[in-house]
Amino acid sequence: MTPISPKQSKSFRTSNPEADSAIDRTIPDFPAAQIPDEDKYFKTHKPPSYLGEISEQVSEFIEHHKKVTGKKVVLVTSGGTTVPLENNTVRFIDNFSAGTRGATSAEYFLENDYAVIFLHREFSLLPYSRHYSHTTNCFLDYMTEVNNKVEINPDFADQMLVVLRKYNDAKTSKSLLLVPFTTVNQYLYTLRTISELLQSLDSKALFYLAAAVSDFFLPQSRLPQHKIQSQATGKLIVDLEQVPKFLSRLVDNWAPSAMIVSFKLETDSSILIKKAKSALDRYQHQLVIGNLLQTRKKEVVFVTPDGKENWITLTNEQIDQDVEIESLIIPEVIKEHKSWVTNHDRK
Amino acid sequence: MTPISPKQSKSFRTSNPEADSAIDRTIPDFPAAQIPDEDKYFKTHKPPSYLGEISEQVSEFIEHHKKVTGKKVVLVTSGGTTVPLENNTVRFIDNFSAGTRGATSAEYFLENDYAVIFLHREFSLLPYSRHYSHTTNCFLDYMTEVNNKVEINPDFADQMLVVLRKYNDAKTSKSLLLVPFTTVNQYLYTLRTISELLQSLDSKALFYLAAAVSDFFLPQSRLPQHKIQSQATGKLIVDLEQVPKFLSRLVDNWAPSAMIVSFKLETDSSILIKKAKSALDRYQHQLVIGNLLQTRKKEVVFVTPDGKENWITLTNEQIDQDVEIESLIIPEVIKEHKSWVTNHDRK
Repeated sequence: MTPISPKQSKSFRTSNPEADSAIDRTIPDFPAAQIPDEDKYFKTHKPPSYLGEISEQVSEFIEHHKKVTGKKVVLVTSGGTTVPLENNTVRFIDNFSAGTRGATSAEYFLENDYAVIFLHREFSLLPYSRHYSHTTNCFLDYMTEVNNKVEINPDFADQMLVVLRKYNDAKTSKSLLLVPFTTVNQYLYTLRTISELLQSLDSKALFYLAAAVSDFFLPQSRLPQHKIQSQATGKLIVDLEQVPKFLSRLVDNWAPSAMIVSFKLETDSSILIKKAKSALDRYQHQLVIGNLLQTRKKEVVFVTPDGKENWITLTNEQIDQDVEIESLIIPEVIKEHKSWVTNHDRK
Repeated sequence: MTPISPKQSKSFRTSNPEADSAIDRTIPDFPAAQIPDEDKYFKTHKPPSYLGEISEQVSEFIEHHKKVTGKKVVLVTSGGTTVPLENNTVRFIDNFSAGTRGATSAEYFLENDYAVIFLHREFSLLPYSRHYSHTTNCFLDYMTEVNNKVEINPDFADQMLVVLRKYNDAKTSKSLLLVPFTTVNQYLYTLRTISELLQSLDSKALFYLAAAVSDFFLPQSRLPQHKIQSQATGKLIVDLEQVPKFLSRLVDNWAPSAMIVSFKLETDSSILIKKAKSALDRYQHQLVIGNLLQTRKKEVVFVTPDGKENWITLTNEQIDQDVEIESLIIPEVIKEHKSWVTNHDRK
């Protein structure tokens, strides 16, 4: 059960006949040792260069709400992570997610008086600006020229004022912190850093993990330096490793006093509940919100460790009125968080 | 050299012991026949459902410029294609591209009096709106509230007026047609349809193929219906086929009278020129613009069938003044297109 020595590690690496050809070996390979996969991951992958800067911003944000506002803080993760297939990245594997769930949920948390750290895929949807980006409308279609001046098109002006006010409120009250990621490696390092800082808020920290995190990745040690060249008749075979299950680390070590909500997205309805329950069994956290890709905007299910399944479904009337399902989800999550805080304080 | 019969095709399929387990076999498999890969591709992959609608819009656009304005028409392709790894897509392989080259180039074509069909990855950068999207600024940071009205922040108002006018000019003169794609399959079908329509413009059609198109894909016949499930200790092995080389079809069949410009993006400078020349040899088109991922915003090389290499490089002064390299590239391309039209008319 001890980590293998550098010498063993080297011999492990060179035993692979393909190892020294097209592959960059300047980064140490995965040791074939028995330490937990999550720890091994951080030992063999470099942190993003900007992590220190993010750590400072998050500390300041948490301190502000701890000492000045007394607000609860939720970490909302949003959007898909990428898995680069090359070191100078041209190709990558991505997880489908525009970030709608995360961006919309963040707004309802803010309206319910939470401070929000929004850990999101760069260029995915953001709270508030989501209403005007990623639509079929071009940004400039909201604008019009009046007397040699750009003005907001009157069709959109009233609604935009409402959104702008909420956005400016979030900014001036310092209730929203935007933290971007792109790759799964950036996501994992940033999540760990933020989690460890949030632990200082004890049970008043909430994790709402809506990002679509890749299950598979290509270890840095196996990344080719340059763009993969296609051969005359060649196929591309991508041999990926499983991403270690970080949720157990989050629950056990990084932020053990926080309430943790994860999402389970499936496309096959027959396995959704089973997968949600097995996630709860495995990680011992507090809530899984299950949803199907096809119906995710009108139906979700809360699965809790007591075995209960609580479905939240928009009525046809609500759908006609453009009610967002997150406006129903967030108050339910907050109720659960309230009990969590109460139970925690009692201990 | 004849296509194999359905019977043979069936036995070919079932000879694979893994074939009937997790994989949806409702879509016919690739026949192991000798017809050209490009034709085989279209026989075994379904067109996007909206293709007829796009075809109508493009026809109308081309007719307008043929009969009313007399403008030359350029098809600019932009952004990366995705390769879905599942039928209900959660995971996909993507090609890195924000669409900067394509969106910026489209603007300079418009300024140089071309009509532009902009075939782009959905949600990638668009001409004109690119100045305000995909920046670290949130859309709403350009706005401010004055007397209960949303107004443009005065810091941005003057420049936005310039951009808005150009955008509105392009719209009112019907010189810009936006056509989106996401997957490589959508891209290939749409490219073929637009190309065949552009052939009616003879040599006055120009192809400026700046999209980052995947070299590899997963045939529809091998796509699992549902999200790939990760195993307890499992790895994911993705076995991809090579995308047929459609450029030869474009040159030989779809639009043989048009001038065709392709891009070659590499990360390894030592192979760039060789790869550009071999593309010209292979497809017999008119111009390859080579660029390196690392320096693509300040240096490109024009490689032509006569073996010449013409480097376009921004000076330090130009870089300081935020000159966009596309403002130098497009006039050069247009010069080449002019000669192409002249030579073509002479024949």
